[in-house]
Amino acid sequence: MEFRVKCTDGNARCGMVRTAHGTFQTPAFMPVGTQGTVKTMTQRSLEEIGAEIILSNTYHLYLRPGIEILRQAGGLHKFMNWSHPILTDSGGYQVFSLSDLRKIEEEGVSFRSHLDGSLHLFTPEKVIDIQRHIGSDIMMVLDECTPYPCTKDYANSSNELTLRWAQRCKDRLTSSPELYGHAQTLFAIVQGSAFEDIREHSARVLTGMNFEGYAIGGLAVGEPADQMYAMIEVCNNILPATKPRYLMGVGTPENLLEAIERGVDMFDCVMPTRNGRNAQLFTRSGVVNITNERYKDDFTPVDEECDCYTCYNYTRAYLRHLFMVKEILGLQLATLHNLSYYQWVVRSARQAIRDRRYKDWKTGQLSRSKQENTLLSTN
Amino acid sequence: MEFRVKCTDGNARCGMVRTAHGTFQTPAFMPVGTQGTVKTMTQRSLEEIGAEIILSNTYHLYLRPGIEILRQAGGLHKFMNWSHPILTDSGGYQVFSLSDLRKIEEEGVSFRSHLDGSLHLFTPEKVIDIQRHIGSDIMMVLDECTPYPCTKDYANSSNELTLRWAQRCKDRLTSSPELYGHAQTLFAIVQGSAFEDIREHSARVLTGMNFEGYAIGGLAVGEPADQMYAMIEVCNNILPATKPRYLMGVGTPENLLEAIERGVDMFDCVMPTRNGRNAQLFTRSGVVNITNERYKDDFTPVDEECDCYTCYNYTRAYLRHLFMVKEILGLQLATLHNLSYYQWVVRSARQAIRDRRYKDWKTGQLSRSKQENTLLSTN
Repeated sequence: MEFRVKCTDGNARCGMVRTAHGTFQTPAFMPVGTQGTVKTMTQRSLEEIGAEIILSNTYHLYLRPGIEILRQAGGLHKFMNWSHPILTDSGGYQVFSLSDLRKIEEEGVSFRSHLDGSLHLFTPEKVIDIQRHIGSDIMMVLDECTPYPCTKDYANSSNELTLRWAQRCKDRLTSSPELYGHAQTLFAIVQGSAFEDIREHSARVLTGMNFEGYAIGGLAVGEPADQMYAMIEVCNNILPATKPRYLMGVGTPENLLEAIERGVDMFDCVMPTRNGRNAQLFTRSGVVNITNERYKDDFTPVDEECDCYTCYNYTRAYLRHLFMVKEILGLQLATLHNLSYYQWVVRSARQAIRDRRYKDWKTGQLSRSKQENTLLSTN
Repeated sequence: MEFRVKCTDGNARCGMVRTAHGTFQTPAFMPVGTQGTVKTMTQRSLEEIGAEIILSNTYHLYLRPGIEILRQAGGLHKFMNWSHPILTDSGGYQVFSLSDLRKIEEEGVSFRSHLDGSLHLFTPEKVIDIQRHIGSDIMMVLDECTPYPCTKDYANSSNELTLRWAQRCKDRLTSSPELYGHAQTLFAIVQGSAFEDIREHSARVLTGMNFEGYAIGGLAVGEPADQMYAMIEVCNNILPATKPRYLMGVGTPENLLEAIERGVDMFDCVMPTRNGRNAQLFTRSGVVNITNERYKDDFTPVDEECDCYTCYNYTRAYLRHLFMVKEILGLQLATLHNLSYYQWVVRSARQAIRDRRYKDWKTGQLSRSKQENTLLSTN
């Protein structure tokens, strides 16, 4: 993997990451394809909206279709017919959020499947092995994502475990073969909850281990946005400028803009897809709840300035109708638009950085996006 | 509207219908877009698979979004962004199958909405007025679709009412203006259950009224296939060869092939869309239930010979995975394939008629389509 920063504006950076499955530009937003599919999106639609990398999920793919099927298919790229970069998270987050009876020990985390209650053990070595079978271009280490809030003692000992697991993941990466003849790389994850000194320690130790990229995990889990931004600053002050920085599971368009300003390069979030399926549409002037009665005879596009298939071809009135009568096409068109919008956000951010006017552009866009009054749903 | 038979082979015909929104070739299969959307299909995907005309539904559109919204949109074509021909059924079938407390009188049929129980009256005049608001290229008369089986007395008196309603629809068509500046045409519906003489009488009286096209209704409602084919022959012996013949709500690929041989030009059916959403995929060698375990590591396309997006890009194993994990993309890809398959059936039938080898081709295709053993689900 190669990362090149081509341009900076303050702490904001514009660059590119080269992987075995091609290049993606940063700042990048990765649509979430948890189960080997970005919900409602065909792979050609993903290409069309300009998604250059997607995220998939070790925990879910391990349970279904299982690594044996993925191995026979020749990895996830071939299985799902996506020839561009894929990042997989390690499954740690899902183990902690979805499964019952998880038990964390030095060795790893044992858990029961949320599907059938079967017992499984994820060790740092095992999640690397699974990700070898998946064949993702960027793998993530196994970590514990601490709940918010948590005590400093808990955050500290949890983080120490995450650091030891990171080293074991790195060792396994080095000692295990590629299965499909293409290079895979590994990102570490900074934890430490909202404690500045633990975050600093975590970032320092992981940087010393020399990973190809670094994620900031354990944010957007309930803490105030200001605290999230402060933690990003703490981490990015230490994480090397020569490596990509990935803020996991974040967030709203506003979160992205603030994090980009603080030097973050990569994002993933279910918000554009999930909120889309719940009739919330992102526009340049704010969030639109398309089921609102006021749109029943609104024959304008969702977003006049958007160049996606949905906005070029359909009206708010038609989308509202689809949602009111519970037609699947509504979910498809809303998702397509929202993901297009998120791609527009990072594309525009990149251009603003290249133009050295990032802060002005951000301020203008944030003010503009408050024209619509709909409250953003975050779950 | 203009209908031209370009070629015949026995009773089978190959032709074209010109409407205000362009031409479609016959035999034609119309994907069903009940609520102003063919379930899971974008309008560009419909174009891509070669659908030249779609069907929508007066009853459903009348309830939602309602005719006032359709009028403001400039009709259904603009509302749903479909610039090609649209046929609307009259809503008679839905009134009889979906709604409660329907009461049939000379004036029309009163019923309660299946959505909110509100009371409505459909008269022949009213369904024409609604279809004027929809702006469909081909409208259907209000009829009563008799249940199967029914007594001859019932079939006879019901059919007489349907005939009187047909005349009233025609009168209303003549006396009511086009709302959107394009011509709309009206098809009559032959009823008569499985009674040959009633069918003959119905076909004769309607032919005498000189409609632009004739539908055969009240079939595929539970009667044996042989009886359906016999009734088609009875009707087509009388219906004028110079007008298109439309077999409503039919059917399996085999039903289509048999009906085409007997001189039918147009079809609609929910089977490719509904069965697709239920994991049943039509292939040249029969029906595949994609959730079957045997496909979990089958990395071949659904149908090797199919040129649809699904078959070009995805494997049976991937489609099975999507269905097993209940991902919407599975419904989309299955629907796209099934509708492509139905378009292939009518396209191939047209070619076989042009080549004057229809019967041979039909026999070969029917025998081939029995290689897969899955039982076709018909509900």
